[in-house]
Amino acid sequence: MCTKKQIILWFFIFFTGIVSGQSRKIINIPDIPGYQTLKCDFHIHTVFSDGTVWPTVRVEEAWEEGLDAIAISDHIEYRPHSKDVVADHNRSFEIAEPLAQQKNVVLIRAAEITRSMPPGHLNALFIRNANLLERDDVMDAIKEAREQGAFIFWNHPGWKAQQPDSTLWWEEHTELLDNGLLHGIEVYNSSEYYPEALEWANEKNLTMLCNSDVHDPIRMSYDLSTGHRPMTLVFAKSKTTGGIKEALFSQRTAVYYDKTLIGKSEILEPLFFASLAFKDNPLKIQNGASRRIEITNKSEVDYELELVQPGVGFDAPEHVILKAGQITPLTISGNSDEISQAKTLNIYYGVKNMLLNPEENLIVTFSFRNL
Amino acid sequence: MCTKKQIILWFFIFFTGIVSGQSRKIINIPDIPGYQTLKCDFHIHTVFSDGTVWPTVRVEEAWEEGLDAIAISDHIEYRPHSKDVVADHNRSFEIAEPLAQQKNVVLIRAAEITRSMPPGHLNALFIRNANLLERDDVMDAIKEAREQGAFIFWNHPGWKAQQPDSTLWWEEHTELLDNGLLHGIEVYNSSEYYPEALEWANEKNLTMLCNSDVHDPIRMSYDLSTGHRPMTLVFAKSKTTGGIKEALFSQRTAVYYDKTLIGKSEILEPLFFASLAFKDNPLKIQNGASRRIEITNKSEVDYELELVQPGVGFDAPEHVILKAGQITPLTISGNSDEISQAKTLNIYYGVKNMLLNPEENLIVTFSFRNL
Amino acid sequence: MCTKKQIILWFFIFFTGIVSGQSRKIINIPDIPGYQTLKCDFHIHTVFSDGTVWPTVRVEEAWEEGLDAIAISDHIEYRPHSKDVVADHNRSFEIAEPLAQQKNVVLIRAAEITRSMPPGHLNALFIRNANLLERDDVMDAIKEAREQGAFIFWNHPGWKAQQPDSTLWWEEHTELLDNGLLHGIEVYNSSEYYPEALEWANEKNLTMLCNSDVHDPIRMSYDLSTGHRPMTLVFAKSKTTGGIKEALFSQRTAVYYDKTLIGKSEILEPLFFASLAFKDNPLKIQNGASRRIEITNKSEVDYELELVQPGVGFDAPEHVILKAGQITPLTISGNSDEISQAKTLNIYYGVKNMLLNPEENLIVTFSFRNL
Amino acid sequence: MCTKKQIILWFFIFFTGIVSGQSRKIINIPDIPGYQTLKCDFHIHTVFSDGTVWPTVRVEEAWEEGLDAIAISDHIEYRPHSKDVVADHNRSFEIAEPLAQQKNVVLIRAAEITRSMPPGHLNALFIRNANLLERDDVMDAIKEAREQGAFIFWNHPGWKAQQPDSTLWWEEHTELLDNGLLHGIEVYNSSEYYPEALEWANEKNLTMLCNSDVHDPIRMSYDLSTGHRPMTLVFAKSKTTGGIKEALFSQRTAVYYDKTLIGKSEILEPLFFASLAFKDNPLKIQNGASRRIEITNKSEVDYELELVQPGVGFDAPEHVILKAGQITPLTISGNSDEISQAKTLNIYYGVKNMLLNPEENLIVTFSFRNL
Repeated sequence: MCTKKQIILWFFIFFTGIVSGQSRKIINIPDIPGYQTLKCDFHIHTVFSDGTVWPTVRVEEAWEEGLDAIAISDHIEYRPHSKDVVADHNRSFEIAEPLAQQKNVVLIRAAEITRSMPPGHLNALFIRNANLLERDDVMDAIKEAREQGAFIFWNHPGWKAQQPDSTLWWEEHTELLDNGLLHGIEVYNSSEYYPEALEWANEKNLTMLCNSDVHDPIRMSYDLSTGHRPMTLVFAKSKTTGGIKEALFSQRTAVYYDKTLIGKSEILEPLFFASLAFKDNPLKIQNGASRRIEITNKSEVDYELELVQPGVGFDAPEHVILKAGQITPLTISGNSDEISQAKTLNIYYGVKNMLLNPEENLIVTFSFRNL
Repeated sequence: MCTKKQIILWFFIFFTGIVSGQSRKIINIPDIPGYQTLKCDFHIHTVFSDGTVWPTVRVEEAWEEGLDAIAISDHIEYRPHSKDVVADHNRSFEIAEPLAQQKNVVLIRAAEITRSMPPGHLNALFIRNANLLERDDVMDAIKEAREQGAFIFWNHPGWKAQQPDSTLWWEEHTELLDNGLLHGIEVYNSSEYYPEALEWANEKNLTMLCNSDVHDPIRMSYDLSTGHRPMTLVFAKSKTTGGIKEALFSQRTAVYYDKTLIGKSEILEPLFFASLAFKDNPLKIQNGASRRIEITNKSEVDYELELVQPGVGFDAPEHVILKAGQITPLTISGNSDEISQAKTLNIYYGVKNMLLNPEENLIVTFSFRNL
Repeated sequence: MCTKKQIILWFFIFFTGIVSGQSRKIINIPDIPGYQTLKCDFHIHTVFSDGTVWPTVRVEEAWEEGLDAIAISDHIEYRPHSKDVVADHNRSFEIAEPLAQQKNVVLIRAAEITRSMPPGHLNALFIRNANLLERDDVMDAIKEAREQGAFIFWNHPGWKAQQPDSTLWWEEHTELLDNGLLHGIEVYNSSEYYPEALEWANEKNLTMLCNSDVHDPIRMSYDLSTGHRPMTLVFAKSKTTGGIKEALFSQRTAVYYDKTLIGKSEILEPLFFASLAFKDNPLKIQNGASRRIEITNKSEVDYELELVQPGVGFDAPEHVILKAGQITPLTISGNSDEISQAKTLNIYYGVKNMLLNPEENLIVTFSFRNL
Repeated sequence: MCTKKQIILWFFIFFTGIVSGQSRKIINIPDIPGYQTLKCDFHIHTVFSDGTVWPTVRVEEAWEEGLDAIAISDHIEYRPHSKDVVADHNRSFEIAEPLAQQKNVVLIRAAEITRSMPPGHLNALFIRNANLLERDDVMDAIKEAREQGAFIFWNHPGWKAQQPDSTLWWEEHTELLDNGLLHGIEVYNSSEYYPEALEWANEKNLTMLCNSDVHDPIRMSYDLSTGHRPMTLVFAKSKTTGGIKEALFSQRTAVYYDKTLIGKSEILEPLFFASLAFKDNPLKIQNGASRRIEITNKSEVDYELELVQPGVGFDAPEHVILKAGQITPLTISGNSDEISQAKTLNIYYGVKNMLLNPEENLIVTFSFRNL
């Protein structure tokens, strides 16, 4: 027999520290018009190079965190466990692939071409056979990757081990770029942000990437109860390898780390407004009166807004934080008679955690009808 | 100029324990077909009886927590602060009302008729003038409330101070019920669950209520970062005083405390399925094969499922927890040839934290087409 | 009968969102040699001025949070609830005092003299009769407080409502100071830090204070599950009203907000080292070798260290965070033969969240014997 | 120069979900008189059998969690990765050992003898050469382990895969026990508690063990921000392999999972009182008076107390939770004149989350002088 108390108590057994491994988080970043927003990490290691976990762990971690796609990119040239782990360069993909299929995580075949600077480390995604990338001359390896159809990006361009004093763009990178052998660049890697890489991405039309470069178990590097791994948001027509490839070659990505977003305004602006819900009724504010608009932020990002110019005929708050998953009121107050004639009230905010360039935030416009 | 120390200080301003008081939580309990699900607390005190906060605090707390409606129900007969706080029985409502209007929280005029057992304490909602409830004879007070149109419910029927040994239904309650003077009963109050009250509600067609009976600041009694106050879910046609009144008189409520729900099956079943999202494609499972259905639980309640009978031709997991805000896979495996002929696979789960009666869980049926 | 499962389950009932109100936190800030470190808040309001809670709530909150002493400092001149709350200026103290006695929280009789700038708002602690402070002339009120033996401090000197454009020291404050009528100043109030006040405290030998100025329930303003209210640390010879008074008049205080500490080096340095535990064995490091010292931070403050000059003959980490309640290794590596002759290795770190002045961090020296 | 955008970014670097991997938690379970309380996990896997992490990860995890000692116990007979991971049975220990030395984690050489039931799976700790345990006959393997000096324990005796219907003790286990080849038994493994094993441990004088049996990254199985892995507490004379071995052979252990402790009363009672601090002044309570004793619980375990018999001449609370890291008052009230003559007040509480046997809690006595 099951008494009332027992029913209630039974319930609580599940609130322990036991992580069941049986549920998947949802990363609350919305889709934008025309595209799915895929959450991806394209730079990951396993015991098959210098990582410390079995390839299936990477799929399991990605599924649990809510990622849509990953690339396991073990080093071609650096395999410190090779005395004990004996396999070719395609093996980590092969081991992970069946689980990825079962879990519906898109697994992209990849490898990291690992050389001294220049050109440094490069990831090649969408390759067919990683073994063929083991070449003496780095250019041969890169060309081989490209011949296999690879999307190639420069990893951690400001990594202190390779560029200790300043983050430089080398002649060799220009050469790669000019020959169609360099398509993207990591603006963020692991826990480092490279503002120079952001500028280069904008200037040279490179796809921006943001990856974990994880070697250890993911939760050893990121506290998933309060944060998230760095990831590349890919705005794709479909959640498939092909959809991701098309989006990467079309520069439809954003950088997402520590609840901060970096990208182009044509991406970030729709992403911002797709995160929000509020009623669009005419405000009908007059001088001396005020109105409260309740804004629901459906996303997991606290958007921090800073007023960039005073309103014409009205006051709006200078600083607003639209807290993730909560409702925040925006109070608009008429401060002159000008407001009575205004058909539309435009409020311009800078979004402090959405960046277009190292020194430039996204500016968004809230536009309310007033009459 | 921006010095390094300022950076540090600036930085701490944001990630503090400072609760801004400027955002409103969302209680993730979905609407059901035909009704809005309003989150309500109909039993609340202030300094105007034996509570310890000013009436406006109750509105602010309700808004921040995401409640839709509250009733401030100060005691008529018990006012221990009356030496210092001098006002009539309508005063706490009057003080709170302007803020409730501004915040769009429905504030219901109410009072607690506070007598020894029988009949114990009774809340009267939707009254017009609380002062008229100050009467020598309890029946006079109750009749006055009813004449004002009140919805009347019995508070904490199993409160140890009044019913120390057992929770009894008295002759006087039958009399109230027979005379249309008793419409509801608290199945849960503060931190106590009364299974007898749940049985009576079902037998006697009383509206079930679940209230905090809060006297101190709400966060002194409930940790809102991990839990929630007990509340009455009201399934209303509109978020108005009238909408709530109609729903209460029609018994369209559910009890919600500690992520546990109690109510009638015609309420709880649609609430359960409105919480979930999953694809409804035909499964096409054959003997020996299996399929994974990913179920998204959009609500804030972890639903705990327990299989109540074996599938016909297939296996389904015995225990499943559909974690709040996450995706949980349900794997169905064909275990006999019977499954090949099954047009529909019905899986029957008991939901351990959804109760109909003290000894009875809600049973839900997941029905998947197989062909 | 109580089965094995039930025992285990029983346990979990307590991990709900219910805050029992029956336990007291410990604020992990250690004592320093010669003094107890008392955690105090000297600026608090109730419904008896413009606050929103009953005075006993302030004692209960203080006890639960782990505070040692509070002053309820209701405004003399501003009592917006006076239509409903009818009492003299001593009443909030009288109501709170019995509970403070029972809970062993030191309750200091106080009042806030509430005037326009200059001199603005002043708190008078240790008074005997608040009613006598109700005077037309502010100087009469201040002198009356002083005659009662008060310790007087300037509240929120940079409050925008009174000093919108810049934070100024007025002639009137010089006059108060010169006449022994001003003893302290709030360097932090509520959620605002006043660097000017910190400079003045250091220049003019004023006691530094840090108070919440709380009006609403404390948990409505601060999230106590992750943070703490701003508080004045008082380094006293005893946990008594007299002990606190002596310490305040002797400037033995520190400011503590958002896990940041501000004070004089003779206070902060012993506080820092009293927070830590590590073995003091000789390191015996030679060129090319390294040693790991495990440092336990027993306090609740994450100390953020930044190396201020290179070691002589050795390398030490540039940035270290000594996490609260955890053990952090410090690895020292010999980098030249000089280290072989060093009797003592001195490592100099700036502590980024311990401030002496607006632009000056505390510098601490870790000194290890090497031979 | 420091621009505003940099401030923003700088700021996000700190409050990320980034787990530094550079600090070690403290498991707040106190030492008991005469012994250090070592936190140990003696059942752990790596990629060298059927685990999914590199051996060094196990040391790193143990150090970060605050464990004192671990045993990597890869299966002798089950090595599913052997196609790719090619090494002998000593290899995982050899890889992990240097890091364990550096981190001061005691690493115990071990192996899991992995057979069908009976005798099921057995761990052998303190062996010298795991390769010699690869034997056709299980008795040969066990004897070899014992000849190497092993402490041998039965793993997960109630594991459903081997004992689906009931947890039985087999003749073979009696034989092992009689021949000095079985010294301990897992009372808890992974997330399962075996009450039968607890009874056997008590009856047959076997050492109780509690281990994670972790295969995946530890944080994939346990949420270390709110809980802890199951562990064996070892009460040792020193934190060394030898100290642990002596304690295990002397049955000085306790089981610790989900903030629940299981062991013998001679262990649990001193552990309980070593967790607490309170003043031991005479109470001097008379009939009608009451006294408050503030009890500080320095440990990380919430102790749940239930009064087992009424006081003689006084009342004490029926239920008390001594919250971890907090101060809880215990109020004793004289209820008859008997108390005036009592020299000592004894209060008897059962500790609901400290078990001696499946149906038996530890009873503790708080003894206060009254005169």
